[in-house]
Amino acid sequence: MNEMLALIKPVDENIRQLAKERTTTLVMPYRAMGEINTLAEKLCAISGSLTPSVDKKALFVMAGDHGVCVQGVSAYHQEVTIGMMSAMLEGKCAVAVYAEHVKAKKILVDMGTYWSTEVSENSNCVYINKKIARSTQDFTKGAAMSRQQAECTVKSGFEVADKLIKDDGLNLVALGELGIGNTTASAAVAVAMLHEKPENIAGRGTGLDDAGLMRKIEAIKKGLEINRNSLTEPLGVLASVGGFEIGGLVGVILACAVNRVPVVLDGFISGAAALIAVKLCPHVLDYLIAGHLSDEAGHRAVLNYLGLKPLLNLGMRLGEGTGAVCAMPLVEMAVATITEIATFKEAGIIYV
Amino acid sequence: MNEMLALIKPVDENIRQLAKERTTTLVMPYRAMGEINTLAEKLCAISGSLTPSVDKKALFVMAGDHGVCVQGVSAYHQEVTIGMMSAMLEGKCAVAVYAEHVKAKKILVDMGTYWSTEVSENSNCVYINKKIARSTQDFTKGAAMSRQQAECTVKSGFEVADKLIKDDGLNLVALGELGIGNTTASAAVAVAMLHEKPENIAGRGTGLDDAGLMRKIEAIKKGLEINRNSLTEPLGVLASVGGFEIGGLVGVILACAVNRVPVVLDGFISGAAALIAVKLCPHVLDYLIAGHLSDEAGHRAVLNYLGLKPLLNLGMRLGEGTGAVCAMPLVEMAVATITEIATFKEAGIIYV
Repeated sequence: MNEMLALIKPVDENIRQLAKERTTTLVMPYRAMGEINTLAEKLCAISGSLTPSVDKKALFVMAGDHGVCVQGVSAYHQEVTIGMMSAMLEGKCAVAVYAEHVKAKKILVDMGTYWSTEVSENSNCVYINKKIARSTQDFTKGAAMSRQQAECTVKSGFEVADKLIKDDGLNLVALGELGIGNTTASAAVAVAMLHEKPENIAGRGTGLDDAGLMRKIEAIKKGLEINRNSLTEPLGVLASVGGFEIGGLVGVILACAVNRVPVVLDGFISGAAALIAVKLCPHVLDYLIAGHLSDEAGHRAVLNYLGLKPLLNLGMRLGEGTGAVCAMPLVEMAVATITEIATFKEAGIIYV
Repeated sequence: MNEMLALIKPVDENIRQLAKERTTTLVMPYRAMGEINTLAEKLCAISGSLTPSVDKKALFVMAGDHGVCVQGVSAYHQEVTIGMMSAMLEGKCAVAVYAEHVKAKKILVDMGTYWSTEVSENSNCVYINKKIARSTQDFTKGAAMSRQQAECTVKSGFEVADKLIKDDGLNLVALGELGIGNTTASAAVAVAMLHEKPENIAGRGTGLDDAGLMRKIEAIKKGLEINRNSLTEPLGVLASVGGFEIGGLVGVILACAVNRVPVVLDGFISGAAALIAVKLCPHVLDYLIAGHLSDEAGHRAVLNYLGLKPLLNLGMRLGEGTGAVCAMPLVEMAVATITEIATFKEAGIIYV
């Protein structure tokens, strides 16, 4: 783990400064593209280049099941996880459709679902089996997974992403996930990391009613209480109340940072993974782009804590990576801003 | 004019209802794509089809100059208008670069700039000359244009857009504009239409300092006072304090509504045009999509008045059509949502 983290370097602040000098002289009023300008400069700092490229995009969807579902914390049955994986492989679910539109390579990783999926031969989605176990344990009764399993999830996610980034030359990654119950695990992670009240962080996930939301808050409280001695550091939190797919996402984030690839967060679950990744290595923060603000209750608190401004705010609350993928065209616009728009001088315009 | 307006029909509410029935059964929690769901249903209602298409996109950039510039209401010289037109034709300005990325056809219409531009032979931007006059008159001294000229701007914009929509089968239009001084004209239009105070609507445009902003507010007050007898109906407002490019945008909007083509608004100037178009024919409102919320002061009031929620809010304040074009990929996602994502039934998932 420490060797992996040691590979992560800060982004290039000199290049960010040079990028700022360019964006402020583009043929427009001072910094008139707002957040697009800022994003353009960030992409330069991440890549270490004034001509960054995001033409090789990929979406990593990490899947896992959650033992805490027995506490009645989700509106959906656990079997839906595997159903959604099939829909992903068949290109029928939302994020598969959106990824196709933005020309992002689709990678689905089984990090630990209860059932296993059949992969059709003609799928245009890469499928990778990294199953740690068949679902985590119910964290209201003890740890969701062992400490060793937690490390293994991160390493697996890292290996999958690191290999694909290097083999395919990926230069923009979006995060996604599938896993009934994972807003409960993510809320528990966020509560532990932000030292917030569960009531302020837990949301309705796939559509819980009031009684379900009460059960969810209660489960988070129980989980944090029974695991209280293991919550002092990020992998302890992951093992105690996290999920296999959350650990996998942490690994993908770390691989992106190691390879200087910008990574677009989706909603609450990838946000929880980001909290862990940034705690493991603070440099990671500068490689993150907040794709959107989810409607899930605790997401705003997570982004505020990270100090990230979301690109989109459309009341989306699906997960899967939909918010991240929908934001990818804006990342392309940011690259176009720094690489293709002329300066006043280049355009031959004297403006004052 | 009345013949043109009579061609505009309400959108299809039956199809919207059918679209809602589909989006609420998609393989996701209830309406989990938020505004994307709502937009998908709107696109169905506009096109009258459950399988709308937005594969033939175009950007209409209307250009014009403003007599009120002599009052010192802009941070930039009036010559910048023609410089920006050249940058547009050469593909060097922001909106030209973005339009290229979203594969939108570029159309630049000179509605009445002071100078004229040379069009290079190999330009990939359609250039159309519909010059009404070389700049409007200073509206602090009287009407910006005659009533006849105002009607002519709308008709010209309509003709240009109607022909291109029909010839090319355009099915998604973004609005843009070029014209130093046009946030002053737009602010005057918005103040007249919304019955707001100039202080609440006028903004810094391309980057006015405090003294410039005071001059701008003063000019708007003078313009509305001297033209007070002509502000009772939309074309009177356009003639009194509007601009040739604003009238052109009104025409493009009307042509889109006639042809049942969704039209993506940009910022404050296209918002002012939308106020006029909707006042001319209230059915127009249902054909409008708010691409983004501009940083220009009065834009929020305009969108609130129209009851439109912007897709993006990124602190952009450039105009040209940049916000509209940056929002186009989200419109594509909305179409993909209704046409490509499976329902739970289609995906074979039993979820509760």
